[in-house]
Amino acid sequence: MITVWKEITEAGVTFPEGFVASGVRCGLKTQGNDLALIVSDSAATVAGVFTTNRVQAACVQYSRRVVRGGTARAILVNAGNANACNGEQGETDNRTLAEWVSRRLHIPPDSVLTASTGIIGHLLPMEKLQSGIADAVSQLERDSETDQTVAHAIMTTDTRPKFCAADSDSDQWVAPIRFGGMCKGAGMIAPNMATMLAFITTDARLPAPLLQEALNRAVAHSFNSVTIDGDTSTNDMCLLLASGMGQGEISRKGEAFEDFVEALTRLCVTLAKEIARDGEGATKLAEIIVRGAATEAGAHRIAKTIAESPLVKTALFGCDPNWGRLMMAAGRSGVAFDPNKVEVRIGEHVVCSEGRSIEFDRDAAHDYLTGKEIQIVLDLNMGEEVATVWTCDYSYDYIKINAEYHT
Amino acid sequence: MITVWKEITEAGVTFPEGFVASGVRCGLKTQGNDLALIVSDSAATVAGVFTTNRVQAACVQYSRRVVRGGTARAILVNAGNANACNGEQGETDNRTLAEWVSRRLHIPPDSVLTASTGIIGHLLPMEKLQSGIADAVSQLERDSETDQTVAHAIMTTDTRPKFCAADSDSDQWVAPIRFGGMCKGAGMIAPNMATMLAFITTDARLPAPLLQEALNRAVAHSFNSVTIDGDTSTNDMCLLLASGMGQGEISRKGEAFEDFVEALTRLCVTLAKEIARDGEGATKLAEIIVRGAATEAGAHRIAKTIAESPLVKTALFGCDPNWGRLMMAAGRSGVAFDPNKVEVRIGEHVVCSEGRSIEFDRDAAHDYLTGKEIQIVLDLNMGEEVATVWTCDYSYDYIKINAEYHT
Repeated sequence: MITVWKEITEAGVTFPEGFVASGVRCGLKTQGNDLALIVSDSAATVAGVFTTNRVQAACVQYSRRVVRGGTARAILVNAGNANACNGEQGETDNRTLAEWVSRRLHIPPDSVLTASTGIIGHLLPMEKLQSGIADAVSQLERDSETDQTVAHAIMTTDTRPKFCAADSDSDQWVAPIRFGGMCKGAGMIAPNMATMLAFITTDARLPAPLLQEALNRAVAHSFNSVTIDGDTSTNDMCLLLASGMGQGEISRKGEAFEDFVEALTRLCVTLAKEIARDGEGATKLAEIIVRGAATEAGAHRIAKTIAESPLVKTALFGCDPNWGRLMMAAGRSGVAFDPNKVEVRIGEHVVCSEGRSIEFDRDAAHDYLTGKEIQIVLDLNMGEEVATVWTCDYSYDYIKINAEYHT
Repeated sequence: MITVWKEITEAGVTFPEGFVASGVRCGLKTQGNDLALIVSDSAATVAGVFTTNRVQAACVQYSRRVVRGGTARAILVNAGNANACNGEQGETDNRTLAEWVSRRLHIPPDSVLTASTGIIGHLLPMEKLQSGIADAVSQLERDSETDQTVAHAIMTTDTRPKFCAADSDSDQWVAPIRFGGMCKGAGMIAPNMATMLAFITTDARLPAPLLQEALNRAVAHSFNSVTIDGDTSTNDMCLLLASGMGQGEISRKGEAFEDFVEALTRLCVTLAKEIARDGEGATKLAEIIVRGAATEAGAHRIAKTIAESPLVKTALFGCDPNWGRLMMAAGRSGVAFDPNKVEVRIGEHVVCSEGRSIEFDRDAAHDYLTGKEIQIVLDLNMGEEVATVWTCDYSYDYIKINAEYHT
């Protein structure tokens, strides 16, 4: 059982023992820092989850190979250029970035992970990156100011940096475990600025297969349960480094491992919700819960279909307690359920029962929907399974951000 | 081979021999006609295609049963109230509508098809409908003015009526065949105003199983290839009545039947494109063609994923030749292809070759995208199969229409 869970909102990836980081400007974006470096003092165990898009950036294919090796020392992240759809030159450039980092840090090239986000189909400006890497290596630090700077350096359309850390303990662990993390949003502003990137650190010691399983399970219930517009980028990536520099150690499956998964999931959920809250043009964070389902996969699919429905998202923007659109979206999800059993709640307001309209206080429901965080619950009354998905509303600014850019 | 194909834009459902129709106001909408009736002089063969949404309006379940019987005499369509999510009362009300029509027309109740579109979860105002049905029966006519009136009476958020007729002939047919049709769009303005409805007539004579096969095939390549926002309504329905009052008769499969399918498909494509062109807030009609695919289903899925991508649709609104978003959407479709073989054309402009950026005239491509009808072609270079999907762009007005309504 998790006995301590203390989130530290002002700290991030260097909060756990064994990590330094830096964020610098190398000139990929028109302004602001755009190059981030996270370094582990010694070989860290690594796990990773990557985009399922068939079209994959060079860094995705490269970093997947590094993760297979089981250990890594550094993560280099650039914002402003996705290095996707650049053919062999893109792959060569990506390898060169890793080599430059490895030489500066005197570590093996295959211990350097890379991640990119930004415009598709433009070659990387390598000279800028070369001097940027030199700056980044020279500025590696470990403090909460650095955590904020490095989280800033991976932003594209995000309106604010997203980072978090946590002190945690469990009655199953030999010692407390620290977590740090940062991420950037799934929004897009420039053409093809498309990426959900997340980087997590911990000072726990775990073998790579366990670490990977923990990450897979945590991502399923956090980053994979966030949807802004249903579009999946060519560069999505979530990496987890475990330095083993703390006293916490988990060597096999069991209750201690389950508590590690739960703690990691909590951190990922905190970061994932920040992505939804900061979706392009978003005015509110919406939590869609589908319960009473026969399977968790079915519940997730219904929740995701609702969360991605343009008609639901525009109704949320309009603060309209429009349960008919929720029923419509659930019905088109492809999941079997009995419409005549469905109950729909918007906050505390039951707006539909047994699949039919019931009396409710429309003004109060409307007022509830004007809030910054709203919750919608569909109870299928068919089973015990539940899933939660986070999203945001569709506003005029979503259209503005995505239509008014010109390549 | 089709030897004659003459579209008549000012005629509609009463153009083929054997049909009369009317459109009247009964007060379901705040203004305009909202009740339509199509009647066949004698028992017509009937075919139908219905929404796949799990949540289905009373009319969908009822009309599906009538279609199974193989013949029908009348179609009653109301706009303004979907009669969905109304439980048993909704089913009773729907049957009552059919009974009222059957009594007024002296035809069997189970020969009356019903279709509804409009708000979900509100009971039908039956008194208004009773007097509306009396008016509709008294005003049945056969002329092109009626065709326009009846097409008007099924509109909700559509900005214009959508109807069309055609004279056609084939060297395989014993006589020419006439077609008429009307439809309404998939847009939504009021909460849950969600419906694609289409009604087609022909004076040909076909057995019901052949007519159903012809409709299935025509719908797959027309109405099922249109997408506005990916949301599928609780009321979607396409009905086809064949009066057999013309000289054309097709009694079995073969070349004559294939030509009938082709002619029917042409009419449906004309109507389907009108739906995309008139999507909510749409400023342009976009034709997305995926060719060089291994399977037609794969080509269709990629085209549909592109057509439903909010990032693609906002780029179209912004007239941005943003091929990276097209690649991203194709990649997330779940269909296997080699990104390094893909060529992308925007109109005549090749903007991506072998999966990579190539030089093109950005100003000219932008100018092309400012047009009212645009074409995008993705060639996967993997096979011979092709699919076409029609859609529209996402504009500020889409958000406005769907967010500013309050229940």
